[in-house]
Amino acid sequence: MVKCSTAGLDASFTALSDATRRGVLEQLGRSDASITDLADKFQMTLAGMMKHVGILEQAGLVTTEKVGRVRTCKLGTRRLDEETAWLEQHRQLWESRFDELDKVVDELKRKEKNNGRKK
Amino acid sequence: MVKCSTAGLDASFTALSDATRRGVLEQLGRSDASITDLADKFQMTLAGMMKHVGILEQAGLVTTEKVGRVRTCKLGTRRLDEETAWLEQHRQLWESRFDELDKVVDELKRKEKNNGRKK
Repeated sequence: MVKCSTAGLDASFTALSDATRRGVLEQLGRSDASITDLADKFQMTLAGMMKHVGILEQAGLVTTEKVGRVRTCKLGTRRLDEETAWLEQHRQLWESRFDELDKVVDELKRKEKNNGRKK
Repeated sequence: MVKCSTAGLDASFTALSDATRRGVLEQLGRSDASITDLADKFQMTLAGMMKHVGILEQAGLVTTEKVGRVRTCKLGTRRLDEETAWLEQHRQLWESRFDELDKVVDELKRKEKNNGRKK
């Protein structure tokens, strides 16, 4: 398997496990936004949004900068490459496992057909 | 964005946010295993492993079957296609945002150079 930071994958998959946090990433992919903008958009309290943004920030998926009274959020520098690689490897394993099962089923069918002929 | 089940993505990313659960999926990608085998391999109590397997099962990533006293775990039928698609779209948004930033930086450099010439 790809060697990558276990804690990093834990943090990023946790960050992605909530629809609001995924929505925030989609929003920041279109344009930067303040915490207040995000709270309004997702109809949430400022405190609730700050908690979500904190989880995204810990995972390196968002960065924030405070200028005066406004905290602006941007996409972080992590592109989720390791997470994509993990999913891709899982898919490959999955496909090879199900290919094996297909072979077993084909083999059983072949044997059954041969037995049918012998009768 | 790709339209997919919000609850489904929540459940699968939650399932993937733990190193043991990712390890169980990797193991089941190689061969089916009983809960007891998995608990031994990950040096965990049976109860602890059953909880992890339950979370994987709820997300559709694992199926289990009890024959006699042994519960065998296999990879489920979900290939994590929606999750891969979500990550891929995030990556594309990310790249287009950072391309925009590159353009802004290039524009600033160009202006600075021109100002330097005028002096």
